[in-house]
Amino acid sequence: MASRGELLYPEDDRVFLEPYLPVLNRQSTDSGIPFVTLTFATSLDSALSLAPGVQTALSGPQSKAMTHYLRCRHDAIMVGVGTAVADNPSLNCRIQGVGGYGGEGLNGQPRPVVVDPQGRWQLTSETKILNLARQGRGKAPWIVTAKTPSAENAKLLEEVGGCYIVLGSQAQMSEGKTSIAWLDILRTIKETGIESIMIEGGGVIINSLLSVENADLINSVIVTIAPTWLGQGGVVVSPPRSEGSSLPVARLQRTKWQQLGDDVVLCGTLKA
Amino acid sequence: MASRGELLYPEDDRVFLEPYLPVLNRQSTDSGIPFVTLTFATSLDSALSLAPGVQTALSGPQSKAMTHYLRCRHDAIMVGVGTAVADNPSLNCRIQGVGGYGGEGLNGQPRPVVVDPQGRWQLTSETKILNLARQGRGKAPWIVTAKTPSAENAKLLEEVGGCYIVLGSQAQMSEGKTSIAWLDILRTIKETGIESIMIEGGGVIINSLLSVENADLINSVIVTIAPTWLGQGGVVVSPPRSEGSSLPVARLQRTKWQQLGDDVVLCGTLKA
Ligand SMILES: NC(=O)c1ccc[n+]([C@@H]2O[C@H](COP(=O)([O-])OP(=O)(O)OC[C@H]3O[C@@H](n4cnc5c(N)ncnc54)[C@H](OP(=O)(O)O)[C@@H]3O)[C@@H](O)[C@H]2O)c1
Ligand SMILES: NC(=O)c1ccc[n+]([C@@H]2O[C@H](COP(=O)([O-])OP(=O)(O)OC[C@H]3O[C@@H](n4cnc5c(N)ncnc54)[C@H](OP(=O)(O)O)[C@@H]3O)[C@@H](O)[C@H]2O)c1
Repeated sequence: MASRGELLYPEDDRVFLEPYLPVLNRQSTDSGIPFVTLTFATSLDSALSLAPGVQTALSGPQSKAMTHYLRCRHDAIMVGVGTAVADNPSLNCRIQGVGGYGGEGLNGQPRPVVVDPQGRWQLTSETKILNLARQGRGKAPWIVTAKTPSAENAKLLEEVGGCYIVLGSQAQMSEGKTSIAWLDILRTIKETGIESIMIEGGGVIINSLLSVENADLINSVIVTIAPTWLGQGGVVVSPPRSEGSSLPVARLQRTKWQQLGDDVVLCGTLKA
Repeated sequence: MASRGELLYPEDDRVFLEPYLPVLNRQSTDSGIPFVTLTFATSLDSALSLAPGVQTALSGPQSKAMTHYLRCRHDAIMVGVGTAVADNPSLNCRIQGVGGYGGEGLNGQPRPVVVDPQGRWQLTSETKILNLARQGRGKAPWIVTAKTPSAENAKLLEEVGGCYIVLGSQAQMSEGKTSIAWLDILRTIKETGIESIMIEGGGVIINSLLSVENADLINSVIVTIAPTWLGQGGVVVSPPRSEGSSLPVARLQRTKWQQLGDDVVLCGTLKA
């Protein structure tokens, strides 16, 4: 079989991640929401990218393989519409042995979920995630929104087996924008049978989840840090402080740092 | 002898730092400037403190002991006037066995140097660094400036054996402010016999040194990162990008990451 850029993530490097991952073959719990892992890669100055949509090679090949390994350990992976629009991401798993990359069917492929409250994401024939679904190299995406999708978008999505999840009644208006509470998003996802989800970015999504109101929803955090300063003007992870508070916004517990190539991987938990 | 809060930094933890430190008993080199180590502690969102002058407990006790160990491995340590004014820092070394902390005289104590181009720092009887010099627990400070110091400041400084280093002719005016080029500061310091200097902060100083024009002056970088997000509004390390450039500002070479308590210590070099 021709190689499709399959990635290897060695057994030895998996061990340190295990305590921070959802248990394998996780049974439904009655917590009401899935196990949530927040994962992303930053520079030393906490930037996810040089600017929205500017492809930024941050972490090395080992960290990239780790991200793909983490994807196969979750039922679903999620990004915000900002990332979907800026990056046209693949959002599949390319670890050797998963479905589409040496394995059967779509075994080990996570469900890609894009959160797009205002329905900003225009799907086209160039949308990578649709093409991968068509080729049997990734699951078809779900798009969580508060707006009725356009007929064109709905058609493109349904053709590959994807769907819109419209959370009309749970949507709130704030500052002239429709927003959906994280608890509602995660509850709805859990009702579809998703027991674990890895949330990958981008900046707006991560800052919102790390803020004091939402941090309770997160089980594990896995951050890769590359030894580089992108400099002022990047897409930065730095959650908002609570009104009037001058305390740190969030602190990880049970931390473990592991060097991976030139980068470091930090694992920790946010729930007490 | 009564304990004065002496710190211990275990032999085992020293090993990984060694390749990044100036060699012991370093002889004068003809590079024209001292060996420069840049050291600081940040949060995950690259903040040095919650706000200027807000004491922020970032790193744990082991990282604190490491900083004091690093101080005894350099002839001098340096901060900007912003840090001097905001924090009233001690800038001595409290590792067990150095002068003033179980050792003889001022053995192992680094020379504290404050860079204060406009002469903003008002010394008083409360200035910690002067009191420590008086008590034989730290060397007397040097203040690098471009202005003629006030008679009051000069008197307080000279009483404890410190001095002003006035770099009048090398000072430039930029944006209505007097500034001194780093090369001139470091050359002058080297001429006094200082062979190694550790620069500790704060934000303005670090960002200036990491910028493309100055990064060549730095030999080693040792950053401690604590697993916490201070949130938006802190004193942030993120160097300015060069005009028109959309490349990362700086990248560390020969990186080594080492977990120390809950924190990580990152060592690397900037010179090729
Ligand atoms: N280094 C990494 O690990 C990594 C990972 C992912 C992305 N990135 C980078 O991040 C950048 C994109 O980040 P971004 O901040 O622009 O976009 P983003 O976080 O991906 O998406 C933000 C958008 O998501 C929507 N959204 C959905 N649910 C939300 C909620 N509960 N609260 C708030 N907003 C919600 C909002 O859309 P509306 O404004 O329409 O309401 C918001 O503007 C890209 O440059 C990408 O490369 C990097
Ligand atoms: N976490 C840590 O490791 C750490 C370490 C040190 C400090 N800090 C924190 O950092 C904060 C203070 O940082 P800061 O950014 O306000 O002040 P800073 O960097 O300590 O001092 C900045 C000032 O130094 C002067 N300066 C001297 N030489 C300069 C040069 N070549 N280029 C530019 N400026 C030069 C300028 O004074 P003029 O404006 O008068 O010209 C400038 O405003 C405090 O909150 C402190 O706690 C944290």
